[in-house]
Amino acid sequence: MNMLTVFALPGMPEVVPGDDLAALMAQAADAHPGHGLVDGDILAVTSKIVSKAEGRIVEAADREQAITDETVRVVATRAYPGGVTRIVENRLGIVGAAAGVDASNTPAGTVLLLPLDPDASASRLRASLQERFGIRLGVVITDTLGRAWREGQTDVAIGGSGVLLLDDLSGTLDASGQVLRVTAPAIGDEIAAAADLVKGKASGCPVAVVRGLGEFVVDDAAGARVLQRDPAQDWFRLGSDEARAEGYAAGVAAGRAAGFAAGVAAGPAAAGAAGSGS
Amino acid sequence: MNMLTVFALPGMPEVVPGDDLAALMAQAADAHPGHGLVDGDILAVTSKIVSKAEGRIVEAADREQAITDETVRVVATRAYPGGVTRIVENRLGIVGAAAGVDASNTPAGTVLLLPLDPDASASRLRASLQERFGIRLGVVITDTLGRAWREGQTDVAIGGSGVLLLDDLSGTLDASGQVLRVTAPAIGDEIAAAADLVKGKASGCPVAVVRGLGEFVVDDAAGARVLQRDPAQDWFRLGSDEARAEGYAAGVAAGRAAGFAAGVAAGPAAAGAAGSGS
Repeated sequence: MNMLTVFALPGMPEVVPGDDLAALMAQAADAHPGHGLVDGDILAVTSKIVSKAEGRIVEAADREQAITDETVRVVATRAYPGGVTRIVENRLGIVGAAAGVDASNTPAGTVLLLPLDPDASASRLRASLQERFGIRLGVVITDTLGRAWREGQTDVAIGGSGVLLLDDLSGTLDASGQVLRVTAPAIGDEIAAAADLVKGKASGCPVAVVRGLGEFVVDDAAGARVLQRDPAQDWFRLGSDEARAEGYAAGVAAGRAAGFAAGVAAGPAAAGAAGSGS
Repeated sequence: MNMLTVFALPGMPEVVPGDDLAALMAQAADAHPGHGLVDGDILAVTSKIVSKAEGRIVEAADREQAITDETVRVVATRAYPGGVTRIVENRLGIVGAAAGVDASNTPAGTVLLLPLDPDASASRLRASLQERFGIRLGVVITDTLGRAWREGQTDVAIGGSGVLLLDDLSGTLDASGQVLRVTAPAIGDEIAAAADLVKGKASGCPVAVVRGLGEFVVDDAAGARVLQRDPAQDWFRLGSDEARAEGYAAGVAAGRAAGFAAGVAAGPAAAGAAGSGS
């Protein structure tokens, strides 16, 4: 029978720059033999502790500049009384608020940047833990993102190693024998979401063990880019207001040229009708 | 320790119109005593079987009209060689492709509409199952949705009863004692995602039992509308191309009027420069 078990790995200490995260996770797993790791387990690791271990910490006063530095493309912005919220594509290709720069659960006066290369971080963690325990493991690095159209946030996979993050079923048959045309479950994001249900936000449990998905633990899995849509293919690559403003500016330029020509042709006799268009 | 267990409820028969879904689920649970229900369990039910039980079936030939009928607002469309893909807000307030009209795992020649009122369906299932088993239960009705910015699909909650679908933590403190300002985990969607990991798409397992989240099973929980953003507050209420086209049309009208006036004022002497704008 298909059974999924998810539990927070207890006993993870507060992570500080330079920490060997794999060693801390291994110690936590060892200290709880009843909850140790088994073959096929997937470790869902909050990106925050990866960032802390990697020293991706900047002064809170530099937050806005840090967001700018992490941004490759602005998707939408809104001013509010205390500042500006920016939804951007960051250098990892992830679309989200504030480029993933994070001010919650951080040491006072600091903010965290996302890990430099979450897939590489996941790969290092996986290699180290697999060697230590002698079993097949997968690692997913998670972050919390808002969504278009829906309230609230869910955790998603921003890095991974050894886990089939996107299960492309297109071409396979459904239970009625019909071809499942566009179905590609975002397994990595669903794993991150399941892990978030036990990790919680304020509980200090940054690692969850996800057990029962060994079929998705594969050596040659692609990294988290497979979960990020190419902006050229994205119907929502710009906020509605931003896209409308861009269109309006182009329309004014085109309309003005056509209107000017029509006005000249109509001549002074049309002056009383000026503004009525052609 | 925080432990989440998710398993597919085995033995669910193929559902046909008029079926008593609560009775079928109760029989399936009874037939597998090792996997029966316990207090605080949440049942994640694929909307497809709710639609089938409720007879929400139309001829495949009427699919496009069915999508139109279920739509209250078009968000984005794209033509492709075989037709048009429409992302719309449907009458339930859900933004998704084809208004949730579903052609996979359906009897040949038919498509399924979403349940008429998934919250009400969830509420009936919950009342019936709670009475039958004498325990507190929650019900989430799930559907599979694509996302902006990210590849693949995840399951989300489109109906619910007795489950805190959105956990608004704003104002609470994080582990560092800082206020969690905008954090509202979309618990319903994360439950749906976790359930999808065991239900799979082609396996004929339409119901999952989600165990270990009893703290989210509450009598007065709001329905799935809490997970749907008000379009007026949605920065992505229109596709980028659609918003740009809307802006362009408005810009052409404004530009043409201004250009015409400028052209009249410039007079015939400007004829050679027509089109250069003002």
